[in-house]
Amino acid sequence: MSVVELTKQLIACPSITPARGAVFDAVEAMLTARGFTIDRFAAGEAPDGPVENLLAWRGEGGPHFAFAGHLDVVPPGEGWSADPFAAEVRGDLLYGRGAVDMKGAIAAFIAALDRLEQGRGTISLILTGDEEGPAIFGTRALIERMGERGLKPDLCLVGEPTSVHRLGDTIKIGRRGSVNIWIEVPGIQGHVAYPTLADNPIPKLVRALAAIDAVHLDDGTDWFQPSNIEITDLEVGNPATNVIPARAKARLSIRFNDLHRGDDLAARVRDLVLAEAPDVVVTPRVSGEAFLTEPGPLSTLVASAIRTHTGIEAELSTSGGTSDARFLSKLCPVVEFGLPNATMHKLDEAVALADLEALVEIYAEIVRRALG
Amino acid sequence: MSVVELTKQLIACPSITPARGAVFDAVEAMLTARGFTIDRFAAGEAPDGPVENLLAWRGEGGPHFAFAGHLDVVPPGEGWSADPFAAEVRGDLLYGRGAVDMKGAIAAFIAALDRLEQGRGTISLILTGDEEGPAIFGTRALIERMGERGLKPDLCLVGEPTSVHRLGDTIKIGRRGSVNIWIEVPGIQGHVAYPTLADNPIPKLVRALAAIDAVHLDDGTDWFQPSNIEITDLEVGNPATNVIPARAKARLSIRFNDLHRGDDLAARVRDLVLAEAPDVVVTPRVSGEAFLTEPGPLSTLVASAIRTHTGIEAELSTSGGTSDARFLSKLCPVVEFGLPNATMHKLDEAVALADLEALVEIYAEIVRRALG
Ligand SMILES: [Zn+2]
Ligand SMILES: [Zn+2]
Repeated sequence: MSVVELTKQLIACPSITPARGAVFDAVEAMLTARGFTIDRFAAGEAPDGPVENLLAWRGEGGPHFAFAGHLDVVPPGEGWSADPFAAEVRGDLLYGRGAVDMKGAIAAFIAALDRLEQGRGTISLILTGDEEGPAIFGTRALIERMGERGLKPDLCLVGEPTSVHRLGDTIKIGRRGSVNIWIEVPGIQGHVAYPTLADNPIPKLVRALAAIDAVHLDDGTDWFQPSNIEITDLEVGNPATNVIPARAKARLSIRFNDLHRGDDLAARVRDLVLAEAPDVVVTPRVSGEAFLTEPGPLSTLVASAIRTHTGIEAELSTSGGTSDARFLSKLCPVVEFGLPNATMHKLDEAVALADLEALVEIYAEIVRRALG
Repeated sequence: MSVVELTKQLIACPSITPARGAVFDAVEAMLTARGFTIDRFAAGEAPDGPVENLLAWRGEGGPHFAFAGHLDVVPPGEGWSADPFAAEVRGDLLYGRGAVDMKGAIAAFIAALDRLEQGRGTISLILTGDEEGPAIFGTRALIERMGERGLKPDLCLVGEPTSVHRLGDTIKIGRRGSVNIWIEVPGIQGHVAYPTLADNPIPKLVRALAAIDAVHLDDGTDWFQPSNIEITDLEVGNPATNVIPARAKARLSIRFNDLHRGDDLAARVRDLVLAEAPDVVVTPRVSGEAFLTEPGPLSTLVASAIRTHTGIEAELSTSGGTSDARFLSKLCPVVEFGLPNATMHKLDEAVALADLEALVEIYAEIVRRALG
């Protein structure tokens, strides 16, 4: 079965996050037919679970090459030219939600298996139904499951759509970390005509935010741009012009490189606010730590496979948002490489048929070299 | 007719701001009976008008003593022990909306007229139906009307409830000014992962507010406490943690003494914000300028009348919110003196019968000395 047919089959299962059932049945059938052992399981409880996950492996011993990805898709939204789950080919493009993010890449990896002889070592697929959602019980649960089964990859490729203008132009070797921080400064409400009877929380918050805004986290590294703090919200909600309010709130978003950890940044912010407001409430939520797979054998291997099949010299990048690669990077070297991402999460998401075919060749080449 | 009867008649006309009709008819009858010439007129247009006003005068030439006040009352609100317009005496108190603010004082002044012989000079009453509301077409229109009629007071007493604990303990010789200022800093919305493509307005606003908060306006004067800036609101309204917002807003309230003018303060704020955000929008609204009648013949005269009838040494104060005295102070020396204000604007507003009787004596004494 061609990679286009495989992709169409996956798109035709509407797997809006969190994915369940049909799309997993389809993948299970594809992998069983190719000699894989399958472990499908649900993880977690409400509100962020249960989440369906699938682990598949073939062969044994090292080296162990893992391909990771997600079967869930973001909601299609209104305004598509055709049914977003019809998986229609029009001209040179295959349309459908998930075409590039990332059912096309999963189909390409499965099609690549048909180009390989099982030699020595292990090939595994780590597929979750919850990457676009909370991602609490997806890839993290799969990593735990692999540990329980004694499966430990030596190299991992995540099939996220990393290409920008042309297939192969970008490999991600890391991602910045992300932490959101909520700040709430309490005060004492009162009338503006009698300020000594009140305690205005706003000047304290303003001074703390000015101090936070003046912080210089770093100048970037060889592989990362400088870490960055943005103040994303202010809220007091006081409609009365003559009233000093009882509380003032702000929210920060920090994107940081591998010189920092989310909790350390939150502690630093807390100290700056405490200096102005001793009774402040600071609530951080770390979405992901920064990770970096230093350029080395894995990125060289992937770049060389891309060069062989496209002639393109891939750029090694750490830009963009977070991905599940942040969890996998704790296991082994990880890089991300996949289709052009111009239409991901957009209306009329589509993949070029030629890119699908080329990606099959590149993925097959990567596995061949990794296990060779 | 006794001062208690006069007060009851006025309370019995429900004159929730803006006052119209019946309460003016009642006052007109009382003053006509006492030999006053009456000019009742409506001023202004929607939305802040028309407003009913009444000008009354008796005698001619100087000296000219004016008594100013308002016939409108704030809405009674829910929860009174009895009908707020029933004007009931229970025990030593007369209950009703407006009892102290300020129908009791108007009745006391009218009753005081019966204690006086018309000697030389002019006595006038400047009564508006809109002091508790926008106050755009009330006392200001009355001042204009007096100008047209060639009436120019030499001294003015405003009958607002200035007493705090006991009748006579406080005379107001000035009021602070008040200006509210709205600040809106525009930016360019974007994703926190790509800050160079966005322009976050929040840090600019925060730096501007920190600079504004650090401003020391003055140390107060002999008669005023220091001017004070309060930041009363912050608003961004951005629910998305990964989005840099397109605009950030703040609101200030400045209460200032007679070392400043509202427009000058607004210009100073604008300069501080412009230094951080060149495209900021700053919108001031001056509610009133500060005014001061330096302690002198008028305050001495009022304090001495109070001392004669109560034995109390009145304190000269400039505290509290704005009043229509700010407009009258452009005409002549103005002081404010009236009933204890503990129940003004509250449920079960009430005046002590003894305070009404004493206020008649004090007001009569003041006029006698002013014209004597
Ligand atoms: Zn994805
Ligand atoms: Zn009043």
